[in-house]
Amino acid sequence: MKIQNTKSKSKLIIGPAVAVDTLIFAIREGKLCVLLIQIGGGPYENKWALPGGIVQVDETLDQAAKNILNKKAGIEGLHMEQLYTFSDLNRDVRGRMVSVAYFALVDSDKLKPKTIDYYKAIEWREIDQLPALAFDHKKMINYGVERLRAKIEYSNIVYALLPKEFTLTEMQMVYEAIAGNKIDKRNFRKKIFSLELLIETNKERKGQKNRPAKLYRFKKRELMFTA
Amino acid sequence: MKIQNTKSKSKLIIGPAVAVDTLIFAIREGKLCVLLIQIGGGPYENKWALPGGIVQVDETLDQAAKNILNKKAGIEGLHMEQLYTFSDLNRDVRGRMVSVAYFALVDSDKLKPKTIDYYKAIEWREIDQLPALAFDHKKMINYGVERLRAKIEYSNIVYALLPKEFTLTEMQMVYEAIAGNKIDKRNFRKKIFSLELLIETNKERKGQKNRPAKLYRFKKRELMFTA
Repeated sequence: MKIQNTKSKSKLIIGPAVAVDTLIFAIREGKLCVLLIQIGGGPYENKWALPGGIVQVDETLDQAAKNILNKKAGIEGLHMEQLYTFSDLNRDVRGRMVSVAYFALVDSDKLKPKTIDYYKAIEWREIDQLPALAFDHKKMINYGVERLRAKIEYSNIVYALLPKEFTLTEMQMVYEAIAGNKIDKRNFRKKIFSLELLIETNKERKGQKNRPAKLYRFKKRELMFTA
Repeated sequence: MKIQNTKSKSKLIIGPAVAVDTLIFAIREGKLCVLLIQIGGGPYENKWALPGGIVQVDETLDQAAKNILNKKAGIEGLHMEQLYTFSDLNRDVRGRMVSVAYFALVDSDKLKPKTIDYYKAIEWREIDQLPALAFDHKKMINYGVERLRAKIEYSNIVYALLPKEFTLTEMQMVYEAIAGNKIDKRNFRKKIFSLELLIETNKERKGQKNRPAKLYRFKKRELMFTA
């Protein structure tokens, strides 16, 4: 692109190109999964990758992330958050490119991902069983998982995965899927109450084998951090 | 830059250029300050800005941030953290540019900032009394301050601003400078102990008017988050 410069009249900048990549996480059958597409040609043929692409000169990064996710995964209207900008020198064999990663945690039952002709497939894949990935997408996913695990400790980011009213056991299952391990019930409850994100309702979940369990709801069903 | 494409032989990408900007925060006379340079020419002449510049094709973002801070502010070897990537369409009147902001909290007594000929001045300026700023640097600083305020709640990021051993009163003064307001002493102590970042030494600060105060140190003098 051309940049006016105070010393020369104009100057052509030869720097990195800018891409975005989107990490869409969901919990499926108790496992943390990420949405991947399989590349149809070029140097990364048959490898799997996050939905991503080049940022156009007339788009902000947020817009580019939304547009690319919509075009390549058929997903609209998702609120994503900027995660980190990756810039290893050889992260793309086709040329120098920095990539701004975006992420969201979603209820996969509400999405119907479909991709474009260039990709061979689009699938949810478990974090612990990832196929061979193109670019630095393994590194991005690791970073995203780490951020997600940190975020459940001080936000209500899981609200999208739970019904309006839920038991602490249901909530714990979501936390365990994200953490990737079992959590001690007493510690979990102590931790969750200390976050002050929940409101106790006067209702109970009945009709199950166990004794009725209290129902809770989030103070807000939009992203909220602990005090 | 040229990008090989699977369909055409090659393709010229006309996207945003990539810059980095560095937010260097310090506490001076009890006030949170940021390091600014005054621009010497061009459309932003006389405005103040964060030290920043274009990312070269052979630099990672981390390297670019270090190189630019060194070149434009004479500061070497600082550990900075990536903050956020800003991409408003018209953030730079000279052309489309995204900028990756980096930040650090430093002991300003240990730095001797000096700038290059193109800039008229380099100065620490109080967050609450910023001059007119170029680009979207006001927005970047606001975001950086917000992140810094959040971070003191769950990390030991202030370690660089305190001596090896310090009293809780000294620590509270640092927190108050960053928060921009007074903090209740009892709440502060309760909060700090809950973070489990400190170790109590067996020593006391003597020789002052008040009764001797216990000395504490950080478990680690490198960035550490709460459990």
